[in-house]
Amino acid sequence: MAERKRPRRTRERILGTALLLFNGAGEPNVTTADIADEMEISPGNLYYHFRNKDEIIAELFAGFERSLDSLLASPEGRSAGVEDLWFLLHLLFEAMWDHRFLFRDLDDILSRNRKLASRFALIMRRGARTVIELCRSLVATGAMDASQHEIAALADNVAIVATYWISYQKISAGERAAETVSLDRAAYQVLSLIAPFLRGDARALLVRLSRDYL
Amino acid sequence: MAERKRPRRTRERILGTALLLFNGAGEPNVTTADIADEMEISPGNLYYHFRNKDEIIAELFAGFERSLDSLLASPEGRSAGVEDLWFLLHLLFEAMWDHRFLFRDLDDILSRNRKLASRFALIMRRGARTVIELCRSLVATGAMDASQHEIAALADNVAIVATYWISYQKISAGERAAETVSLDRAAYQVLSLIAPFLRGDARALLVRLSRDYL
Repeated sequence: MAERKRPRRTRERILGTALLLFNGAGEPNVTTADIADEMEISPGNLYYHFRNKDEIIAELFAGFERSLDSLLASPEGRSAGVEDLWFLLHLLFEAMWDHRFLFRDLDDILSRNRKLASRFALIMRRGARTVIELCRSLVATGAMDASQHEIAALADNVAIVATYWISYQKISAGERAAETVSLDRAAYQVLSLIAPFLRGDARALLVRLSRDYL
Repeated sequence: MAERKRPRRTRERILGTALLLFNGAGEPNVTTADIADEMEISPGNLYYHFRNKDEIIAELFAGFERSLDSLLASPEGRSAGVEDLWFLLHLLFEAMWDHRFLFRDLDDILSRNRKLASRFALIMRRGARTVIELCRSLVATGAMDASQHEIAALADNVAIVATYWISYQKISAGERAAETVSLDRAAYQVLSLIAPFLRGDARALLVRLSRDYL
Protein backbone atom coordinates (compact mmCIF):
# COMPACT_ATOMS: atom_id res chain seq x y z
CA MET A 1 0.00 0.00 0.00
CA ALA A 2 2.88 2.35 0.76
CA GLU A 3 4.21 1.52 -2.72
CA ARG A 4 0.91 2.48 -4.38
CA LYS A 5 1.00 5.90 -2.75
CA ARG A 6 4.54 6.69 -3.76
CA PRO A 7 3.99 8.31 -7.20
CA ARG A 8 1.51 10.80 -5.75
CA ARG A 9 3.82 11.68 -2.93
CA THR A 10 6.76 12.20 -5.29
CA ARG A 11 4.59 14.41 -7.50
CA GLU A 12 3.60 16.53 -4.50
CA ARG A 13 7.18 16.68 -3.26
CA ILE A 14 8.30 17.91 -6.70
CA LEU A 15 5.70 20.70 -6.58
CA GLY A 16 6.65 21.66 -3.03
CA THR A 17 10.37 21.69 -3.79
CA ALA A 18 9.89 23.63 -7.03
CA LEU A 19 7.79 26.26 -5.23
CA LEU A 20 10.46 26.63 -2.54
CA LEU A 21 13.29 27.01 -5.06
CA PHE A 22 11.31 29.29 -7.43
CA ASN A 23 10.32 31.59 -4.56
CA GLY A 24 13.85 31.66 -3.19
CA ALA A 25 15.98 32.10 -6.30
CA GLY A 26 13.51 33.31 -8.95
CA GLU A 27 11.95 30.92 -11.47
CA PRO A 28 14.32 31.76 -14.37
CA ASN A 29 17.30 30.73 -12.19
CA VAL A 30 15.95 27.25 -11.32
CA THR A 31 16.11 24.25 -13.70
CA THR A 32 14.31 20.90 -13.45
CA ALA A 33 17.78 19.43 -12.75
CA ASP A 34 18.07 21.76 -9.72
CA ILE A 35 14.72 20.48 -8.44
CA ALA A 36 15.70 16.82 -8.88
CA ASP A 37 19.08 17.54 -7.22
CA GLU A 38 17.45 19.20 -4.23
CA MET A 39 15.12 16.19 -3.80
CA GLU A 40 17.92 13.69 -4.40
CA ILE A 41 15.92 11.93 -7.12
CA SER A 42 16.95 11.22 -10.72
CA PRO A 43 15.92 13.64 -13.50
CA GLY A 44 14.14 10.63 -15.08
CA ASN A 45 11.98 10.25 -11.99
CA LEU A 46 11.04 13.94 -12.20
CA TYR A 47 10.24 13.69 -15.94
CA TYR A 48 7.95 10.72 -15.17
CA HIS A 49 5.73 13.20 -13.32
CA PHE A 50 6.28 16.43 -15.31
CA ARG A 51 7.50 16.66 -18.89
CA ASN A 52 9.13 20.07 -18.35
CA LYS A 53 9.32 23.12 -16.08
CA ASP A 54 6.32 24.80 -17.67
CA GLU A 55 4.13 21.84 -16.60
CA ILE A 56 5.33 22.32 -13.01
CA ILE A 57 4.61 26.07 -13.23
CA ALA A 58 1.12 25.38 -14.66
CA GLU A 59 0.34 23.05 -11.74
CA LEU A 60 1.62 25.57 -9.17
CA PHE A 61 -0.45 28.25 -10.90
CA ALA A 62 -3.54 26.03 -10.61
CA GLY A 63 -2.88 25.92 -6.84
CA PHE A 64 -2.76 29.73 -6.79
CA GLU A 65 -6.04 29.87 -8.72
CA ARG A 66 -7.72 27.50 -6.24
CA SER A 67 -6.56 29.62 -3.29
CA LEU A 68 -8.09 32.72 -4.93
CA ASP A 69 -11.33 31.01 -5.96
CA SER A 70 -13.01 31.36 -2.59
CA LEU A 71 -11.56 34.85 -2.04
CA LEU A 72 -12.87 36.36 -5.26
CA ALA A 73 -16.39 34.96 -4.92
CA SER A 74 -18.99 37.70 -4.43
CA PRO A 75 -19.73 38.53 -0.81
CA GLU A 76 -22.76 36.50 0.22
CA GLY A 77 -26.10 38.17 0.83
CA ARG A 78 -25.09 40.74 3.42
CA SER A 79 -23.40 44.10 2.74
CA ALA A 80 -19.62 44.25 2.96
CA GLY A 81 -17.81 46.30 5.59
CA VAL A 82 -14.30 47.64 5.90
CA GLU A 83 -13.34 44.48 7.82
CA ASP A 84 -14.26 42.40 4.74
CA LEU A 85 -11.97 44.52 2.63
CA TRP A 86 -9.14 44.21 5.12
CA PHE A 87 -9.65 40.46 5.48
CA LEU A 88 -9.82 39.96 1.71
CA LEU A 89 -6.53 41.82 1.20
CA HIS A 90 -4.90 39.89 4.01
CA LEU A 91 -5.81 36.51 2.46
CA LEU A 92 -5.05 37.73 -1.06
CA PHE A 93 -1.52 38.79 -0.15
CA GLU A 94 -0.97 35.56 1.76
CA ALA A 95 -1.82 33.58 -1.39
CA MET A 96 0.40 35.89 -3.48
CA TRP A 97 3.28 35.55 -1.05
CA ASP A 98 3.00 31.74 -1.19
CA HIS A 99 3.38 32.00 -4.98
CA ARG A 100 5.61 35.05 -5.09
CA PHE A 101 7.82 33.63 -7.87
CA LEU A 102 4.94 34.41 -10.25
CA PHE A 103 5.02 38.10 -9.38
CA ARG A 104 8.80 38.46 -9.39
CA ASP A 105 9.02 37.53 -13.09
CA LEU A 106 5.44 37.90 -14.24
CA ASP A 107 6.01 39.20 -17.79
CA ASP A 108 8.70 36.61 -18.36
CA ILE A 109 6.54 33.67 -17.21
CA LEU A 110 3.37 34.83 -18.99
CA SER A 111 5.11 35.63 -22.27
CA ARG A 112 6.29 31.99 -22.48
CA ASN A 113 2.84 30.54 -21.89
CA ARG A 114 -0.27 31.95 -23.56
CA LYS A 115 -2.68 29.67 -21.70
CA LEU A 116 -1.29 30.80 -18.35
CA ALA A 117 -1.45 34.42 -19.57
CA SER A 118 -5.17 34.21 -20.33
CA ARG A 119 -5.87 32.50 -17.00
CA PHE A 120 -3.93 35.27 -15.24
CA ALA A 121 -5.92 37.93 -17.13
CA LEU A 122 -9.10 36.24 -15.90
CA ILE A 123 -7.91 36.37 -12.27
CA MET A 124 -7.06 40.08 -12.64
CA ARG A 125 -10.48 40.89 -14.10
CA ARG A 126 -12.22 38.93 -11.33
CA GLY A 127 -10.09 40.75 -8.74
CA ALA A 128 -11.02 44.16 -10.15
CA ARG A 129 -14.71 43.12 -10.27
CA THR A 130 -14.58 42.00 -6.64
CA VAL A 131 -13.15 45.39 -5.64
CA ILE A 132 -15.93 47.16 -7.56
CA GLU A 133 -18.61 45.06 -5.83
CA LEU A 134 -17.09 45.66 -2.40
CA CYS A 135 -16.91 49.42 -3.04
CA ARG A 136 -20.51 49.58 -4.25
CA SER A 137 -21.55 47.79 -1.11
CA LEU A 138 -19.58 50.29 1.00
CA VAL A 139 -21.19 53.20 -0.87
CA ALA A 140 -24.66 51.70 -0.26
CA THR A 141 -24.04 51.64 3.51
CA GLY A 142 -22.62 55.19 3.50
CA ALA A 143 -19.13 54.02 4.53
CA MET A 144 -17.70 55.19 1.20
CA ASP A 145 -18.21 58.28 -0.93
CA ALA A 146 -17.20 57.60 -4.55
CA SER A 147 -18.75 57.88 -8.02
CA GLN A 148 -18.99 54.97 -10.48
CA HIS A 149 -16.06 56.53 -12.41
CA GLU A 150 -13.98 56.82 -9.27
CA ILE A 151 -14.72 53.21 -8.28
CA ALA A 152 -13.78 51.92 -11.75
CA ALA A 153 -10.43 53.79 -11.70
CA LEU A 154 -9.85 52.65 -8.10
CA ALA A 155 -10.40 48.98 -9.02
CA ASP A 156 -7.77 49.20 -11.78
CA ASN A 157 -5.33 50.92 -9.44
CA VAL A 158 -5.88 48.26 -6.75
CA ALA A 159 -5.23 45.50 -9.31
CA ILE A 160 -2.05 47.22 -10.53
CA VAL A 161 -0.56 47.96 -7.10
CA ALA A 162 -1.39 44.46 -5.80
CA THR A 163 0.01 42.70 -8.87
CA TYR A 164 3.18 44.73 -9.31
CA TRP A 165 4.21 45.54 -5.74
CA ILE A 166 6.76 42.70 -5.65
CA SER A 167 8.15 43.66 -9.06
CA TYR A 168 8.30 47.35 -8.07
CA GLN A 169 10.22 46.50 -4.91
CA LYS A 170 12.60 44.33 -6.89
CA ILE A 171 13.30 47.13 -9.38
CA SER A 172 13.42 50.10 -7.01
CA ALA A 173 15.40 48.42 -4.23
CA GLY A 174 17.57 46.19 -6.38
CA GLU A 175 17.81 42.42 -6.66
CA ARG A 176 19.36 41.99 -3.18
CA ALA A 177 16.24 43.29 -1.49
CA ALA A 178 13.89 40.91 -3.32
CA GLU A 179 13.77 38.50 -0.39
CA THR A 180 12.86 41.15 2.14
CA VAL A 181 9.78 42.41 0.27
CA SER A 182 6.99 42.99 2.75
CA LEU A 183 3.54 41.90 1.67
CA ASP A 184 2.20 43.78 4.67
CA ARG A 185 3.51 46.93 3.03
CA ALA A 186 1.70 45.86 -0.17
CA ALA A 187 -1.56 45.57 1.79
CA TYR A 188 -0.88 49.01 3.31
CA GLN A 189 -0.30 50.48 -0.17
CA VAL A 190 -3.61 49.07 -1.39
CA LEU A 191 -5.45 50.33 1.69
CA SER A 192 -3.93 53.78 1.07
CA LEU A 193 -5.65 53.76 -2.35
CA ILE A 194 -9.05 53.09 -0.79
CA ALA A 195 -8.79 55.13 2.43
CA PRO A 196 -9.41 58.61 0.93
CA PHE A 197 -12.88 57.50 -0.24
CA LEU A 198 -14.00 56.18 3.15
CA ARG A 199 -16.07 58.29 5.53
CA GLY A 200 -16.48 58.55 9.30
CA ASP A 201 -16.15 55.36 11.34
CA ALA A 202 -15.12 53.30 8.29
CA ARG A 203 -12.11 55.52 7.66
CA ALA A 204 -11.11 55.55 11.33
CA LEU A 205 -11.35 51.75 11.40
CA LEU A 206 -9.21 51.40 8.28
CA VAL A 207 -6.55 53.74 9.69
CA ARG A 208 -6.49 51.61 12.86
CA LEU A 209 -6.32 48.33 10.93
CA SER A 210 -3.61 49.53 8.59
CA ARG A 211 -1.43 50.58 11.53
CA ASP A 212 -0.75 46.85 12.05
CA TYR A 213 0.86 46.81 8.63
CA LEU A 214 3.49 49.47 9.23
CA MET B 1 31.58 66.34 -46.34
CA ALA B 2 28.54 64.18 -47.00
CA GLU B 3 30.84 61.17 -46.66
CA ARG B 4 32.13 62.30 -43.26
CA LYS B 5 28.62 62.57 -41.90
CA ARG B 6 27.52 59.15 -43.05
CA PRO B 7 28.56 57.01 -40.00
CA ARG B 8 26.66 59.28 -37.63
CA ARG B 9 23.58 59.21 -39.80
CA THR B 10 23.67 55.42 -40.03
CA ARG B 11 24.03 55.17 -36.27
CA GLU B 12 21.02 57.42 -35.77
CA ARG B 13 19.01 55.53 -38.38
CA ILE B 14 19.78 52.25 -36.57
CA LEU B 15 18.49 53.74 -33.30
CA GLY B 16 15.37 55.13 -34.95
CA THR B 17 14.60 51.88 -36.76
CA ALA B 18 15.24 49.77 -33.64
CA LEU B 19 12.92 51.99 -31.58
CA LEU B 20 10.20 51.67 -34.22
CA LEU B 21 10.48 47.88 -34.43
CA PHE B 22 10.85 47.38 -30.65
CA ASN B 23 7.77 49.52 -29.96
CA GLY B 24 5.77 47.78 -32.65
CA ALA B 25 6.60 44.12 -32.13
CA GLY B 26 8.07 44.00 -28.61
CA GLU B 27 11.83 44.02 -28.01
CA PRO B 28 12.16 40.22 -27.47
CA ASN B 29 10.67 39.62 -30.93
CA VAL B 30 13.15 41.83 -32.82
CA THR B 31 16.73 40.77 -33.70
CA THR B 32 19.63 42.90 -34.93
CA ALA B 33 19.18 41.06 -38.26
CA ASP B 34 15.57 42.34 -38.40
CA ILE B 35 16.83 45.90 -37.85
CA ALA B 36 19.48 45.59 -40.60
CA ASP B 37 16.87 44.02 -42.93
CA GLU B 38 14.42 46.84 -42.33
CA MET B 39 17.14 49.42 -43.13
CA GLU B 40 18.43 47.45 -46.11
CA ILE B 41 21.97 47.51 -44.76
CA SER B 42 24.29 44.55 -44.06
CA PRO B 43 24.50 43.07 -40.55
CA GLY B 44 28.23 43.95 -40.69
CA ASN B 45 27.38 47.62 -41.14
CA LEU B 46 25.09 47.46 -38.10
CA TYR B 47 27.75 45.69 -35.99
CA TYR B 48 30.21 48.45 -36.94
CA HIS B 49 28.02 50.80 -34.90
CA PHE B 50 26.63 48.50 -32.19
CA ARG B 51 28.18 45.24 -31.01
CA ASN B 52 24.82 43.73 -30.02
CA LYS B 53 21.17 44.46 -29.28
CA ASP B 54 21.84 45.35 -25.64
CA GLU B 55 24.08 48.23 -26.78
CA ILE B 56 21.22 49.56 -28.90
CA ILE B 57 18.83 49.23 -25.95
CA ALA B 58 21.30 51.01 -23.64
CA GLU B 59 21.55 53.92 -26.11
CA LEU B 60 17.75 54.15 -26.49
CA PHE B 61 17.46 54.06 -22.71
CA ALA B 62 19.93 56.96 -22.46
CA GLY B 63 17.58 58.92 -24.73
CA PHE B 64 14.69 58.14 -22.38
CA GLU B 65 16.79 59.30 -19.40
CA ARG B 66 17.61 62.57 -21.17
CA SER B 67 13.94 63.22 -21.92
CA LEU B 68 13.10 62.72 -18.21
CA ASP B 69 16.02 64.78 -16.91
CA SER B 70 14.33 68.13 -17.34
CA LEU B 71 10.95 66.75 -16.21
CA LEU B 72 12.14 65.37 -12.90
CA ALA B 73 14.09 68.46 -11.90
CA SER B 74 12.58 70.21 -8.87
CA PRO B 75 10.10 72.97 -9.68
CA GLU B 76 12.00 76.24 -9.64
CA GLY B 77 11.48 78.78 -6.90
CA ARG B 78 7.71 79.21 -7.16
CA SER B 79 5.10 76.88 -5.61
CA ALA B 80 3.66 74.17 -7.84
CA GLY B 81 0.02 74.12 -8.83
CA VAL B 82 -2.30 71.45 -10.19
CA GLU B 83 -1.40 72.59 -13.72
CA ASP B 84 2.26 71.69 -13.04
CA LEU B 85 1.18 68.21 -11.99
CA TRP B 86 -0.97 67.80 -15.08
CA PHE B 87 1.76 69.12 -17.37
CA LEU B 88 4.40 66.90 -15.74
CA LEU B 89 2.26 63.78 -16.23
CA HIS B 90 1.50 64.76 -19.80
CA LEU B 91 5.22 65.06 -20.70
CA LEU B 92 6.15 62.00 -18.64
CA PHE B 93 3.67 59.76 -20.47
CA GLU B 94 4.74 61.20 -23.80
CA ALA B 95 8.35 60.18 -23.06
CA MET B 96 7.16 56.75 -21.86
CA TRP B 97 5.04 56.26 -24.95
CA ASP B 98 8.03 57.10 -27.18
CA HIS B 99 9.97 54.33 -25.41
CA ARG B 100 7.05 52.00 -24.72
CA PHE B 101 9.03 48.83 -25.57
CA LEU B 102 10.80 49.30 -22.22
CA PHE B 103 7.53 49.09 -20.31
CA ARG B 104 6.05 46.24 -22.30
CA ASP B 105 8.86 43.87 -21.24
CA LEU B 106 10.41 45.70 -18.32
CA ASP B 107 11.37 42.73 -16.10
CA ASP B 108 12.76 40.88 -19.08
CA ILE B 109 14.94 43.78 -20.26
CA LEU B 110 16.17 44.76 -16.78
CA SER B 111 16.97 41.19 -15.69
CA ARG B 112 19.39 40.89 -18.63
CA ASN B 113 21.23 44.11 -17.82
CA ARG B 114 22.17 45.06 -14.26
CA LYS B 115 23.53 48.47 -15.22
CA LEU B 116 20.26 49.39 -16.94
CA ALA B 117 18.36 48.05 -13.92
CA SER B 118 20.16 50.35 -11.48
CA ARG B 119 19.68 53.34 -13.80
CA PHE B 120 15.98 52.51 -14.01
CA ALA B 121 15.77 52.26 -10.20
CA LEU B 122 17.31 55.73 -10.01
CA ILE B 123 14.68 57.14 -12.39
CA MET B 124 11.89 55.57 -10.32
CA ARG B 125 13.24 57.03 -7.08
CA ARG B 126 13.63 60.47 -8.68
CA GLY B 127 10.07 60.22 -9.99
CA ALA B 128 8.68 59.34 -6.56
CA ARG B 129 10.70 62.19 -5.01
CA THR B 130 9.36 64.66 -7.58
CA VAL B 131 5.79 63.60 -6.71
CA ILE B 132 6.52 64.08 -2.99
CA GLU B 133 7.92 67.59 -3.61
CA LEU B 134 4.96 68.54 -5.79
CA CYS B 135 2.50 67.27 -3.17
CA ARG B 136 4.25 69.16 -0.35
CA SER B 137 4.07 72.28 -2.44
CA LEU B 138 0.33 71.71 -3.01
CA VAL B 139 -0.21 71.14 0.74
CA ALA B 140 1.66 74.39 1.51
CA THR B 141 -0.71 76.38 -0.72
CA GLY B 142 -3.79 74.64 0.73
CA ALA B 143 -4.65 72.93 -2.58
CA MET B 144 -4.00 69.50 -1.05
CA ASP B 145 -4.88 67.93 2.28
CA ALA B 146 -2.59 64.97 3.01
CA SER B 147 -0.25 63.83 5.80
CA GLN B 148 3.43 62.97 5.25
CA HIS B 149 2.50 59.26 5.47
CA GLU B 150 -0.26 59.70 2.90
CA ILE B 151 2.07 61.57 0.54
CA ALA B 152 4.77 58.87 0.84
CA ALA B 153 2.28 56.07 0.04
CA LEU B 154 0.81 58.18 -2.78
CA ALA B 155 4.26 58.70 -4.38
CA ASP B 156 4.88 54.92 -4.44
CA ASN B 157 1.43 54.30 -5.91
CA VAL B 158 1.98 56.95 -8.59
CA ALA B 159 5.33 55.34 -9.51
CA ILE B 160 3.74 51.85 -9.68
CA VAL B 161 0.70 52.83 -11.75
CA ALA B 162 2.80 54.95 -14.14
CA THR B 163 5.46 52.27 -14.61
CA TYR B 164 3.18 49.25 -14.96
CA TRP B 165 0.15 50.64 -16.78
CA ILE B 166 1.38 49.34 -20.16
CA SER B 167 2.23 45.94 -18.70
CA TYR B 168 -1.15 45.76 -16.90
CA GLN B 169 -3.00 46.55 -20.13
CA LYS B 170 -0.98 43.91 -21.95
CA ILE B 171 -1.81 41.26 -19.35
CA SER B 172 -5.43 42.14 -18.66
CA ALA B 173 -6.48 42.79 -22.26
CA GLY B 174 -4.25 40.23 -23.96
CA GLU B 175 -1.36 40.61 -26.39
CA ARG B 176 -3.61 41.76 -29.28
CA ALA B 177 -4.60 44.90 -27.40
CA ALA B 178 -1.01 45.95 -26.64
CA GLU B 179 -0.92 48.37 -29.56
CA THR B 180 -4.09 50.17 -28.55
CA VAL B 181 -2.91 50.99 -25.01
CA SER B 182 -3.87 54.55 -24.20
CA LEU B 183 -1.32 56.61 -22.35
CA ASP B 184 -4.05 59.18 -21.79
CA ARG B 185 -5.83 56.53 -19.73
CA ALA B 186 -2.57 56.03 -17.81
CA ALA B 187 -2.47 59.76 -17.02
CA TYR B 188 -6.12 59.59 -15.95
CA GLN B 189 -5.34 56.62 -13.66
CA VAL B 190 -2.51 58.57 -12.02
CA LEU B 191 -4.66 61.68 -11.63
CA SER B 192 -7.33 59.49 -9.99
CA LEU B 193 -4.76 58.55 -7.32
CA ILE B 194 -4.09 62.21 -6.52
CA ALA B 195 -7.57 63.72 -6.92
CA PRO B 196 -9.06 62.55 -3.58
CA PHE B 197 -6.43 64.57 -1.68
CA LEU B 198 -7.09 67.82 -3.53
CA ARG B 199 -9.38 70.52 -2.12
CA GLY B 200 -11.64 73.21 -3.51
CA ASP B 201 -10.60 74.88 -6.77
CA ALA B 202 -7.61 72.54 -7.23
CA ARG B 203 -9.88 69.49 -7.26
CA ALA B 204 -12.37 71.11 -9.61
CA LEU B 205 -9.53 72.05 -11.96
CA LEU B 206 -8.13 68.50 -11.91
CA VAL B 207 -11.54 67.02 -12.67
CA ARG B 208 -11.86 69.43 -15.62
CA LEU B 209 -8.33 68.69 -16.89
CA SER B 210 -8.71 64.93 -16.58
CA ARG B 211 -11.92 65.04 -18.62
CA ASP B 212 -9.68 65.59 -21.66
CA TYR B 213 -8.18 62.17 -20.98
CA LEU B 214 -11.33 60.10 -21.14
